[in-house]
Amino acid sequence: MDNFEYVVPTRVIFGHQTELKVGEIIKGYGYKKILIHYGQGSIKKDGLLDKIVQSLKTNNIEYIELGGVHPNPDIELVRTAIKLCHTEHIDMILAVGGGSVIDSAKLTAAGFYYDGDPFDISLHKYVPKKVLPVGVLLTISAAGSETSTSCVITNEKTKTKMGYNHPLNRPLFAIMDPELTFTVSPYQTACGIVDIMMHTLERYFNESKEPELADALSEGLLRAVMEAGTKVMKHPNDYDARACLMMAGSLSHNGLTNLGKMGRMPVHQLEHVVSGLYTEVAHGAGLSVLFPAWAFYYAALDIAKFDKFAKNVMNIHLEKPSDNAKMGIIRLKEYFHSLGMPLTFSELGIKNPDIEWMVNKLTEGGTRVVDHHIKPLDAEVAKAIYTSVL
Amino acid sequence: MDNFEYVVPTRVIFGHQTELKVGEIIKGYGYKKILIHYGQGSIKKDGLLDKIVQSLKTNNIEYIELGGVHPNPDIELVRTAIKLCHTEHIDMILAVGGGSVIDSAKLTAAGFYYDGDPFDISLHKYVPKKVLPVGVLLTISAAGSETSTSCVITNEKTKTKMGYNHPLNRPLFAIMDPELTFTVSPYQTACGIVDIMMHTLERYFNESKEPELADALSEGLLRAVMEAGTKVMKHPNDYDARACLMMAGSLSHNGLTNLGKMGRMPVHQLEHVVSGLYTEVAHGAGLSVLFPAWAFYYAALDIAKFDKFAKNVMNIHLEKPSDNAKMGIIRLKEYFHSLGMPLTFSELGIKNPDIEWMVNKLTEGGTRVVDHHIKPLDAEVAKAIYTSVL
Repeated sequence: MDNFEYVVPTRVIFGHQTELKVGEIIKGYGYKKILIHYGQGSIKKDGLLDKIVQSLKTNNIEYIELGGVHPNPDIELVRTAIKLCHTEHIDMILAVGGGSVIDSAKLTAAGFYYDGDPFDISLHKYVPKKVLPVGVLLTISAAGSETSTSCVITNEKTKTKMGYNHPLNRPLFAIMDPELTFTVSPYQTACGIVDIMMHTLERYFNESKEPELADALSEGLLRAVMEAGTKVMKHPNDYDARACLMMAGSLSHNGLTNLGKMGRMPVHQLEHVVSGLYTEVAHGAGLSVLFPAWAFYYAALDIAKFDKFAKNVMNIHLEKPSDNAKMGIIRLKEYFHSLGMPLTFSELGIKNPDIEWMVNKLTEGGTRVVDHHIKPLDAEVAKAIYTSVL
Repeated sequence: MDNFEYVVPTRVIFGHQTELKVGEIIKGYGYKKILIHYGQGSIKKDGLLDKIVQSLKTNNIEYIELGGVHPNPDIELVRTAIKLCHTEHIDMILAVGGGSVIDSAKLTAAGFYYDGDPFDISLHKYVPKKVLPVGVLLTISAAGSETSTSCVITNEKTKTKMGYNHPLNRPLFAIMDPELTFTVSPYQTACGIVDIMMHTLERYFNESKEPELADALSEGLLRAVMEAGTKVMKHPNDYDARACLMMAGSLSHNGLTNLGKMGRMPVHQLEHVVSGLYTEVAHGAGLSVLFPAWAFYYAALDIAKFDKFAKNVMNIHLEKPSDNAKMGIIRLKEYFHSLGMPLTFSELGIKNPDIEWMVNKLTEGGTRVVDHHIKPLDAEVAKAIYTSVL
């Protein structure tokens, strides 16, 4: 087991109607004027924004609003948000939404205390020392950004989607009411299920052997998410199943499932290039296409671990480990398909993917190799993986 | 799933030689003078105290020492410690040891800001509003007190062992080097394994149905701990297995395994009465005797859940659920026995247990019923359970 530090200071307030406490919670911390940051405006239509505003007013908290965050959030809106926070003397940001809104809020919070361009932080050119506090009111179970250290922002002009991790990225609190996710569309729900699974799956396959505890927790989480996922696709208003996905989304990406091991994310990197170029691609859908392709490539190099996955997660027990390893991935693909998720670029709506551009972007012109414990993910491997799902 | 709040702000610093960083870590928080609190002096013999002192001196941190904490820690030493913290102007307590030392430090930290007798806090007569910061350097994997909200202290004069939970009880940081547990005796190691399992087992059996996520994480944790437990009993210096037990000890009692459900601890309450009266009884050993007895009593009332446990944790698949439920408990007893743990009062070294006294103490003269979801644990049930393991 590797040495590590682990702390998740984010206060999770979970359950039925917890969103009504938002004003009281913020007042408890003593903040005076907040930015409500959100996405495409669904929170206006479904009345959530009204409830938030009511709770803020009751608790004498001033606020301004900035919506418009879209999937694969753009750096341009972050720049606007930072200026607004300065001119309006904001002392806290409330992100109302899913991973895109939260990540936009996180980079705004970090950029607030940096004089340069905030994308420098994404590009690892500047390491934040201080951030504005970010609170979350979660409406989509997927990214796990509500308790994670990660933040992924896209520069649309340069078609660059970049993630950076920092302990200061963990939000101050996260309010999670599973009922708010009842109205998430089947497609977005499915994308979320894939994303949640992927955060643990990528960590699971980082190492072929120990640590057993992280593996056992991962296997349990994956089985619970798959079961809840199937339930939710049939019954969108199944509270307990929605609650399982919501909490699993946080646990899957907060470091719990890679305690004592590296948290490498090779498939996320393969995917970020795709949805950086084709910005209409949902992250979860991209992962659904790329993970099985990645897994088939690497399973041949680590049969024991993929066999273990097949047994302990997919409940498949073929005699020959190499067969079992492959069958585990096949069943996983079938599961993704059962959720309505794509398995090829074509099903993703990309007819002629520019693989050369993607390989070049991922490997920075062939100079960069994505970290991986079995075999480096270089240009040749990336090309093989992308090509296998045309 | 029940509504809940969940946050574990304790910073875990885990791994090889992390104890050498203790001075640097404390300096990082800005504390100037600390109390080093410890147990029976093994840290002097094995050189750990010297390493700590060296690290403190290097970082210009003043310290005083107070050892002498024994298993089932007594309130009298807590009173002494509080006085010492005041006269010596201590601004942080470093607990070096396991659950007993940590709990003694926790009540000292809470009692520091209370004018009355600290045992009032254990008796729920006073709720702390402020505590001294407590840092932990863990040397035994068992109680999980290093990241938990719980604190259990005994009043030897009144033979009262009382636990209380409070968010302020979570330590500021916990340094965990699995190597420090290599020298823990086989008996104490086994007691720890039982204690770790029990913190999750008690939570697991709180509810017969949902939430599935908590159950799946619990099942994974239990399997990993059992496997690591067997390894450690054979090879005390197996780093990865010791690391598994150490991290699982924290996760098992920090609330993770009962997310979205009650965290009732009926068997702990049965046991506290036993080790309150017979203070030579190790907590884990007492639990080893009492959990299977409790389980046999309640399995008949909740066959589905005990059948699930047998399948998913003990890997037993008898056709008839009621048979499977029982066989799961039998195999668990066999596992405890394989660790050298007792299964009866007699094996625990208590020839003629004063069951009447214990039942009376647990139920406060028959007026109190221990909370339980299936059937209340009243005097009659308690007597039946205690009597079944004579």
